[in-house]
Amino acid sequence: MLLNIDRASRLMGENGLDGLLATTASNVFYLSGLWSIGLVVLPTETQVYAIVSREQPSRPVLVVSTGELDTVMDCFPGMRVISYGNFYREVAEGVEFSPLEVRLKELGVGRDPESDALKALAAALEESGLTDRAIGLDEHGINPAYPSELKKRFPRLKIKPAASVFRQIRMVKTEEEIKRLRAAVEVTEKAILKAVSTAREGVTEAEMGKEFEKALIEQGGQPLITCLHIGRSTVFINRRPGDTALRKGDQILFDVGCRYQGYASDIARTFAFGDVGERARRYYAAILEGQERGLETIKAGVRAQDVFRATVAAVREAGIPHFRRHHVGHGIGIDVYDPPLLAPGDETVLEEGMVMDIEPPYYEIGTGALAVEDTFVVTKDRAELLTSISRKLEVLD
Amino acid sequence: MLLNIDRASRLMGENGLDGLLATTASNVFYLSGLWSIGLVVLPTETQVYAIVSREQPSRPVLVVSTGELDTVMDCFPGMRVISYGNFYREVAEGVEFSPLEVRLKELGVGRDPESDALKALAAALEESGLTDRAIGLDEHGINPAYPSELKKRFPRLKIKPAASVFRQIRMVKTEEEIKRLRAAVEVTEKAILKAVSTAREGVTEAEMGKEFEKALIEQGGQPLITCLHIGRSTVFINRRPGDTALRKGDQILFDVGCRYQGYASDIARTFAFGDVGERARRYYAAILEGQERGLETIKAGVRAQDVFRATVAAVREAGIPHFRRHHVGHGIGIDVYDPPLLAPGDETVLEEGMVMDIEPPYYEIGTGALAVEDTFVVTKDRAELLTSISRKLEVLD
Repeated sequence: MLLNIDRASRLMGENGLDGLLATTASNVFYLSGLWSIGLVVLPTETQVYAIVSREQPSRPVLVVSTGELDTVMDCFPGMRVISYGNFYREVAEGVEFSPLEVRLKELGVGRDPESDALKALAAALEESGLTDRAIGLDEHGINPAYPSELKKRFPRLKIKPAASVFRQIRMVKTEEEIKRLRAAVEVTEKAILKAVSTAREGVTEAEMGKEFEKALIEQGGQPLITCLHIGRSTVFINRRPGDTALRKGDQILFDVGCRYQGYASDIARTFAFGDVGERARRYYAAILEGQERGLETIKAGVRAQDVFRATVAAVREAGIPHFRRHHVGHGIGIDVYDPPLLAPGDETVLEEGMVMDIEPPYYEIGTGALAVEDTFVVTKDRAELLTSISRKLEVLD
Repeated sequence: MLLNIDRASRLMGENGLDGLLATTASNVFYLSGLWSIGLVVLPTETQVYAIVSREQPSRPVLVVSTGELDTVMDCFPGMRVISYGNFYREVAEGVEFSPLEVRLKELGVGRDPESDALKALAAALEESGLTDRAIGLDEHGINPAYPSELKKRFPRLKIKPAASVFRQIRMVKTEEEIKRLRAAVEVTEKAILKAVSTAREGVTEAEMGKEFEKALIEQGGQPLITCLHIGRSTVFINRRPGDTALRKGDQILFDVGCRYQGYASDIARTFAFGDVGERARRYYAAILEGQERGLETIKAGVRAQDVFRATVAAVREAGIPHFRRHHVGHGIGIDVYDPPLLAPGDETVLEEGMVMDIEPPYYEIGTGALAVEDTFVVTKDRAELLTSISRKLEVLD
């Protein structure tokens, strides 16, 4: 499983919660291992829940539509499942069933589903023993009418908004999560190298972007962020890769990531196609030096905002005196942006097991952007990089 | 633009609304053309809005974080934009700027952003002339604390939940939308044919799934649904493609789609790898006959539930007497599931310009699933198919 049980129990305690109710794709996945296809095809209307109690944090109750029951096979074992709505599966005769088929029969054929998501949610709260307790609700994914309906049905139930509690729990990763994040980084690095190997005079951003995404898919990753631009167009980093064609002297900027086993990656690299000029080289050296010096300050016990200050100061000293930035990094996990933020005002104390990105990019309208972004795990005494490809401004011929 | 202006004006009128406030990825895209990258990387915390008034439905006001301002270049022209939050872009000296660079300077450098999303939203309501009017709020994407904050600031503002109004408006497509949906279908069909061309003894679901997704990417599509299974595993249709390897006598089932220019596709095809047996052939013929007979009933003026009844009855007559199904199709657009649903109880009268899918799949634990799903436009006197590849059970050698 993915859940950090000790941390979840402690934070439920500190927030006066007896249980947690997940309602969004990422929080449901975190508690149950289910990546809801319903939330992909109809994001706002689909209702999927995972509930854990403080007593049994490793034994979630999952609520899904009957149509999605087949995906329960991909969840963590030992899940209790309540489904709602009709979806018809017939059962063949004279066939020996596989264990998975037996499980699907048990879940989806052998008993009647609840008629709607609200009834299934009520049944799941009963199953979890939480109908007269205080639950923390991930408030972004639930049908807005349901909380008051639940209170009518269970007058002693207390519902507190808890999206922020989920974010606090997810901030520190378990070993399984770090393993997946490391794999997501590796997949992304290989795809960057594959895409950049196609660099040649005249190739477009879109063409290199396709090479990047196909390389992700080849490795079992799913494209998530493909911000890939060339030359001055790099300042428009968040647009889809376009028609800009590579010319000698251009920088190529990747700020890219994928989803792999549910976990996100987010890496930036800048390449020089020939000579990008003395100023770009000097500025790139400055942001790299800033990133290095920021990394050197990181260990458990340091405050997020102090890493920010050290990084920005180092970039300024190292060659971009006018450097400004609103943050120089962020946590990463199932979502691309987990807390904390390496930013002014974020007083979060870094803890062992946090996985984060550090990035001091420079954007300039008229010349373009330069960036380097790397993922690391916070350990007792340092930042352990998950990335392994060169962070230098590599020059391509 | 994508918005159906006449329909939007009429439905705003019928619902007593002077304007619409979009807050989710798909509704913001529908009104503005912006596909928010913030909503991709941090779905629940990001705030992006598009507002139209009944007086000026074609002139939206967009609210985005300053970091996303570069993506405004991809929006429909004539957009008014209000940004919030810091994101630093410097401006080069001694450089001649392109029109896009000039626009980015104007939007992102030349004026101060609002400090947060709530202030920017308030400014956008003022800009839209709606602060003392009734707005329809797409209630799923907004920070739950904001509606009451807006009412404090604008005591005469009325806010009505309107996610369902957006869904009603989006149900009937404009010419531009139909063009994009048609293109999404074409891209998907080519990718299906590419993937199925790799069918050979021993190939796995995952390998064919990768071929499918790479073929989408090659054409500029984005993978969205890759439900691709082999043999008995087809009953687990919603799982990710797995390790099941192709053997003679297996069916291969694609229930797949992509996003192309913001629009979704959703197509199902069943292939026979060698001889799948008499029963599977007979059952496939029955669902195809059901789909055909369902299609024959479709034209403007027919009720959704009547198409359902005709389709189910035809499948039963044609060879699966025990056939059951909760729906046999759905609208499709930016989301994979738009209303109406071809289902019992859906009394929606089909209208010219609706784009829908029709699908009577058969699921059987122990033998697997069979499916055919096609996309069509409702016209005055028929269903015009957007799909063009064969709907027969094609036999692969």
